[in-house]
Amino acid sequence: MPQHQKKQDPSSTAGANTAFFFPYEDLLNFTIDIFQKIGCPQEEARTAAIALLSADLRGIDSHGVARLVGYVRLWEAGRANPTPHIRIIHETPSTAVVDGDSGLGLVVAPYAMQVAIEKAKNAGTGWVSVQHSNHFGIAGYHALQAVKEDMIGIAMTNASALVAPTFSIERMLGTNPICVAVPAGEEPPFVADLATTTAANGKLEILQRKNEEAPLGWIQDKEGRPTTDAHALKTGGALLPLGGDRDHGSHKGYALGAVVDIFSAVLSGANYGPWVPPFPAFVPMPTGMPGKGIGHFFGAMRIDAFRPATEFKQHMDKWIRRFRSATPAPGHEKVLIPGDPEREMETERLTIGIPLLAPVVADLKGLAEKLGVDFPA
Amino acid sequence: MPQHQKKQDPSSTAGANTAFFFPYEDLLNFTIDIFQKIGCPQEEARTAAIALLSADLRGIDSHGVARLVGYVRLWEAGRANPTPHIRIIHETPSTAVVDGDSGLGLVVAPYAMQVAIEKAKNAGTGWVSVQHSNHFGIAGYHALQAVKEDMIGIAMTNASALVAPTFSIERMLGTNPICVAVPAGEEPPFVADLATTTAANGKLEILQRKNEEAPLGWIQDKEGRPTTDAHALKTGGALLPLGGDRDHGSHKGYALGAVVDIFSAVLSGANYGPWVPPFPAFVPMPTGMPGKGIGHFFGAMRIDAFRPATEFKQHMDKWIRRFRSATPAPGHEKVLIPGDPEREMETERLTIGIPLLAPVVADLKGLAEKLGVDFPA
Repeated sequence: MPQHQKKQDPSSTAGANTAFFFPYEDLLNFTIDIFQKIGCPQEEARTAAIALLSADLRGIDSHGVARLVGYVRLWEAGRANPTPHIRIIHETPSTAVVDGDSGLGLVVAPYAMQVAIEKAKNAGTGWVSVQHSNHFGIAGYHALQAVKEDMIGIAMTNASALVAPTFSIERMLGTNPICVAVPAGEEPPFVADLATTTAANGKLEILQRKNEEAPLGWIQDKEGRPTTDAHALKTGGALLPLGGDRDHGSHKGYALGAVVDIFSAVLSGANYGPWVPPFPAFVPMPTGMPGKGIGHFFGAMRIDAFRPATEFKQHMDKWIRRFRSATPAPGHEKVLIPGDPEREMETERLTIGIPLLAPVVADLKGLAEKLGVDFPA
Repeated sequence: MPQHQKKQDPSSTAGANTAFFFPYEDLLNFTIDIFQKIGCPQEEARTAAIALLSADLRGIDSHGVARLVGYVRLWEAGRANPTPHIRIIHETPSTAVVDGDSGLGLVVAPYAMQVAIEKAKNAGTGWVSVQHSNHFGIAGYHALQAVKEDMIGIAMTNASALVAPTFSIERMLGTNPICVAVPAGEEPPFVADLATTTAANGKLEILQRKNEEAPLGWIQDKEGRPTTDAHALKTGGALLPLGGDRDHGSHKGYALGAVVDIFSAVLSGANYGPWVPPFPAFVPMPTGMPGKGIGHFFGAMRIDAFRPATEFKQHMDKWIRRFRSATPAPGHEKVLIPGDPEREMETERLTIGIPLLAPVVADLKGLAEKLGVDFPA
């Protein structure tokens, strides 16, 4: 576990697992500055920074500000357009396809989610498939935009291939997350936000840093054998679909990841399967790409397109309270509602700050220096 | 494995795992007769029989004609209405809520899926949540209705509680399946049809009949401990969400099952969580039920609401072929596309007939005698 230290200056003697705490607002302003420095207009820089840092607030550290350097590298490689002409290229009353014009997914996704919400206002629901985008941060942030409007929000995205389908040793799918966010009344929203793999890649990275073994069922080696080697992806291994192996339902995780790929990319005209462009700018692009950029899919369903919102929310409160009061297994305190851990983390981090590991701080300082931006003192 | 015998007369000496083969048409006509005998109008009896037997054709034997006796018992108990007034009680251009009036889910679900398809014709997509229904057979059958119209079909349903959420020993969710069916061009459709548990209850029933052990990760005992005892559900145990345990992502299976419950029942006004009525008519109804009957959720998305259907289908063909050609793991012949096993089974069973185990044949003969219907010779 990272040691909780109060915003020390990271020095060469600090271990890689030492955490330094930064106030959310400081990191937000820094991130806005960086996005503006690479050419994003002020408003879009702010949109992107809020989306990116929502991952840090919610405890999904692998997808937050630690990736800022990666986004800048995409821009340096000419793969992220800071001034995209994002637009609807096809639509019906309840659907649209959005062309992200190679913009940051952190900007394209909020635009597309807003289109879904506007469609839902008129048609009851809105469904938007997106082509020509880049990585959008965490699915949960985008799905939650609909909740503010008394809608159920859905967000998913494909990503570059790290996952082998059941019975295969070839990486064919990304970790392809799905988020469904549902408003409640007095209770906080229900937020199911999950990679369609047994474990998200970020969790594997934590084990790699600590040189610890992974549980069986997370990854396989290049021969398709189960392995606990957290570094197996570097030697031809692959992440496993949710379920782990056939006996434990990995064909279901594979099917779910495939649905995300199809909704995000085959519907929109983005790249799919092994052709999805990688996030690291130094990894070569796949050859023979059948579409444009990476793909996302968003949905918004107006609650009162089904039943009065107050009635629905009363029942969601009842649902949540009943599940929270389910008899816990021995050794466990309580049953959690999807979204509980991330919300509790957000409350905590808005107070104590966002912990960043020394190598992340060093990366961000390097970025600040290169682009001539002040790093939070 | 059941022995493959050609339609022998089941005698008291035949083992419980001996299979007798019946032509699909014979079982279909028999099932139509039974549904008419309990009061279904001819057309609805046919609709229900086709939906029910689609499970036998696709190899999901636990949900097919073997359940016919169970449906009749629901009618005997006054819990299934053979002449329901199924109707839309709320709608917008892309949504509807359907009241199944306590009809057979096998009749209510096709009605609701048709509403979703009609909505999609006009608004691009259609989304229908259903209250006051009963069990609808297999999700795959309903989702595939949309594929015939060049639409993506989605079907899900809640069911009575057999599944314990992560960290709990209390059964709170059904096996809550999700199906997504996607049309292709020259390739057959992609059909992801999955219970949100590690293993469907039907698979457990097979192990129970054979007195074999279940793999760890399928079920837990009444104390929440992992167990291989396939009979553990009879002694207070529970099925486990897809993932099995927290380390292997069971919180994701729990979240997916919860989404199905919310979409099917909290949106529609059906019962949810531990209040979903049981399929076996002899099991007492839960007390304090917050809604009506069980709930389903259906979606239909017109392909050309996103991009031209021919273009989409060419890319689906490419997707399917690329995944089919993914490097297989040693010891495996090929990578499967979701829907392959069920479709191959359907082709086989339309030729060689539908295998029924001796106890199922005996049940059906008893039903035939009781209701005065000819059983296939």
